[in-house]
Amino acid sequence: MTDVQDLDKPDEIATLIRDIREIMARNRLVEGLVVRSDEPNHALVERIVHKQNLTRLAQKLEKLHPADIAMILEALPHEDRLAIWELVRSDHDGDVLLEVSDSVRASLLATMDREELLNAANSLEADELADLAPDLPEYVMQDVFTALPLEEREQLKFALSYAEDTVGALMDFDLVTLRADVRIEVILRYLRRMEDLPDHTDKLFVVDRIGQFQGVLFLKTLLLSDPEQEVAQVMAREVVRFHPEDKARETADAFERYDLISAPVIDEQNRLIGRVTVDAVVDFIREASDEERLAQVGLREEEDIFAPILRSVKNRAPWLAINLVTAMIASRVIGLFDGAIEQLVALAALMPIVAGMGGNVGNQTITMIVRELAFRKLDNDDIRLLYSKELRVALINGLVWGGVLAVITLLLYHEPALSIVMMSAVSLNFLAAAFFGVTIPVVRMKLGRDPALGSSVLITAITDSGGFFIFLGLATMFLLK
Amino acid sequence: MTDVQDLDKPDEIATLIRDIREIMARNRLVEGLVVRSDEPNHALVERIVHKQNLTRLAQKLEKLHPADIAMILEALPHEDRLAIWELVRSDHDGDVLLEVSDSVRASLLATMDREELLNAANSLEADELADLAPDLPEYVMQDVFTALPLEEREQLKFALSYAEDTVGALMDFDLVTLRADVRIEVILRYLRRMEDLPDHTDKLFVVDRIGQFQGVLFLKTLLLSDPEQEVAQVMAREVVRFHPEDKARETADAFERYDLISAPVIDEQNRLIGRVTVDAVVDFIREASDEERLAQVGLREEEDIFAPILRSVKNRAPWLAINLVTAMIASRVIGLFDGAIEQLVALAALMPIVAGMGGNVGNQTITMIVRELAFRKLDNDDIRLLYSKELRVALINGLVWGGVLAVITLLLYHEPALSIVMMSAVSLNFLAAAFFGVTIPVVRMKLGRDPALGSSVLITAITDSGGFFIFLGLATMFLLK
Repeated sequence: MTDVQDLDKPDEIATLIRDIREIMARNRLVEGLVVRSDEPNHALVERIVHKQNLTRLAQKLEKLHPADIAMILEALPHEDRLAIWELVRSDHDGDVLLEVSDSVRASLLATMDREELLNAANSLEADELADLAPDLPEYVMQDVFTALPLEEREQLKFALSYAEDTVGALMDFDLVTLRADVRIEVILRYLRRMEDLPDHTDKLFVVDRIGQFQGVLFLKTLLLSDPEQEVAQVMAREVVRFHPEDKARETADAFERYDLISAPVIDEQNRLIGRVTVDAVVDFIREASDEERLAQVGLREEEDIFAPILRSVKNRAPWLAINLVTAMIASRVIGLFDGAIEQLVALAALMPIVAGMGGNVGNQTITMIVRELAFRKLDNDDIRLLYSKELRVALINGLVWGGVLAVITLLLYHEPALSIVMMSAVSLNFLAAAFFGVTIPVVRMKLGRDPALGSSVLITAITDSGGFFIFLGLATMFLLK
Repeated sequence: MTDVQDLDKPDEIATLIRDIREIMARNRLVEGLVVRSDEPNHALVERIVHKQNLTRLAQKLEKLHPADIAMILEALPHEDRLAIWELVRSDHDGDVLLEVSDSVRASLLATMDREELLNAANSLEADELADLAPDLPEYVMQDVFTALPLEEREQLKFALSYAEDTVGALMDFDLVTLRADVRIEVILRYLRRMEDLPDHTDKLFVVDRIGQFQGVLFLKTLLLSDPEQEVAQVMAREVVRFHPEDKARETADAFERYDLISAPVIDEQNRLIGRVTVDAVVDFIREASDEERLAQVGLREEEDIFAPILRSVKNRAPWLAINLVTAMIASRVIGLFDGAIEQLVALAALMPIVAGMGGNVGNQTITMIVRELAFRKLDNDDIRLLYSKELRVALINGLVWGGVLAVITLLLYHEPALSIVMMSAVSLNFLAAAFFGVTIPVVRMKLGRDPALGSSVLITAITDSGGFFIFLGLATMFLLK
């Protein structure tokens, strides 16, 4: 892939997508024309026009960047998508497959035969193949594997051995290495004999005879230095470096903090084994925040809008199942107090306010803490401070908003005792929300889990059932005979 | 700033933060020692040790990258933070201020006098100054402005004139430009006479005599080409370019899609005015996703854990106020049916299930659609498809989960009619959730607003009040006499 391409503004792609849909709709119409044998010429003309349209379309697609082709495929209904996929030049296949989302990738791969899959796979580099590997049929991967040169085979094995959220899965092997005792002038001549440099090359890597990492030579240093100098005189020795088992998330933080374009990856023996580039980091950041957003509403995978209904139903089931359980618990809590509600039906109308606002407080606390945890590890001092701060904020909020609700309750029901119960229940539920809002993510962090995942569902369950219990319990104690 | 720095792993920074806290705690202890005049020598020794500690600390901090200093400042309580801020070398001030979060920045700026502020501001470039400008006192900005050379003054004016979410606010002015009719060899000699190239220079920009953008010369092309060739022969003419009024979000998408490191910004007359670099884009992506996360729970600004309680209370108030209103509406809906609840108290226990699960369905739908909208504009065909898909998914889910709930209701209350009401209410509320789950973000998009913002609050309000109304309404119609 190259950094250079046509100026493809999103609007132009949108236009192209509309065109494709029209042509495809017409296509289906033309296919329908066969039956009308009374007007054979008409059908024939239509078919020729259609063929021409398709050819023109194929020419347009050929000129597009793989990422744009991917974007177009994403925006098309299943049937049109496969038709366009047929039109795409086969030497682009691999790159396009890398760019599309998981669900679209699966639908595209399903239409490809063994040879097409092999061709697509062979056009990719080891680190790209590793990204695609989980979606490829076993037999294709075997074929690809045996067809690879030894070095790339090792690289592929290496990349596959690391989990998705590590540097090992993020890195590539496109290294330009050189020795420290060479003159700049020699490097310049050496480069001029090369066809191309890997994308995102802002630095060359300096290693010794046994492959140990010694430093980097920035391209800009190469350009600015006196050609008679040796690499050792101008190279940078203290650079941010990573290990393949480092967390991708922390690597992304480092890229952001230090404004990196590329960084070396070394093993425990300080041997240079690869590099991470900023484009892989940007993709990682985007995907991580996308996954997080889906996980918040219990969705495991993205659905494109053309996905089959039943897959969507399945995708959305786990969260609904969890919610069914938590809602049933809350319902049984209310059931405990049916005598109280029968005596004072106002309780039924007021109880969702206590529960709902408690949920808000809990979610605000959790969001703050997850944000703080994403930024740095919290020590015990910090955690103590957090409890103290969140509980105090909750208490003030409880008294303020509970007070407002007490006044509204008084205006609606003219029962001062009910007002006081309302205010007390809101305050207590806010305190519970703040307490668990700190506890849940902190405990998850201490257990080494993602502090965000499922926290919102859990806190809402607690503030719902807890809110009902506190409110109806206080009402039973103080309002009923 | 440079790409080269010490290998500062997060762990080392965490250790440093702990050390600082200890030293500062000891500091407060030492200050407390004055009063104990019976042991003056002890106090003196302690003070000397403390001074030494501070000096050593200052030396350590001096060697750190501004981003790391920022990270340390963020992690310290207010008092310690200001003490460390005093220690930081003043020529780093500007860079550190750029890196810290808004709330910490405000607390740091508040301690700086006019001269310090001016020094910090003068160390920055026009585009960086523009980022800092909203937080600086008016009189400092005036001084800075008059002190700037004419060119930079124009750049600052320019950068300030664009909204935060546009390319104009993202771009910088660090351009290396050249003419198309020059030989590569001349460029190489020209560069060798330069002190440094701007960070993130992966390409030089080719302009004509009147500043019109003609193309780019990649550093790698410069290195790989025959020095006798002219720039015109090897430059890339078709590159992704932006306009200052383009949305930052779309620019970030383009950087991600085309794996860019830097890109030219041109005006309507095709004149080159600046460039966008990938580090600014990464910062933008991070900040945008951070803001989105906070906005989801109605928070306007980040709070650090050391923020004053009352500021937190204020920051969290708007969402709680909105929730108070929506909860009151839901409560009044329930109030409409108090007769029904009095007759059949089981309704009070079951109604939160209908409301809560409807809210889940609505939030899942909204998340899917906001995701789709972030990715591309939806046309009317897409929207029709979305309604059809989401309503069908909701209907199936309603029948499935409503069916499960009907069975549970039957087991608990032994009333078949109540079971049927439960199932119908769940299905209807799911359909309402899906309908508004599509409608809310789509309408917001059509109005040109952010489709995500506040969508979740709105859909939950609808499914709560709607769920109560549907369930209690059906119960009144079919169950009660």
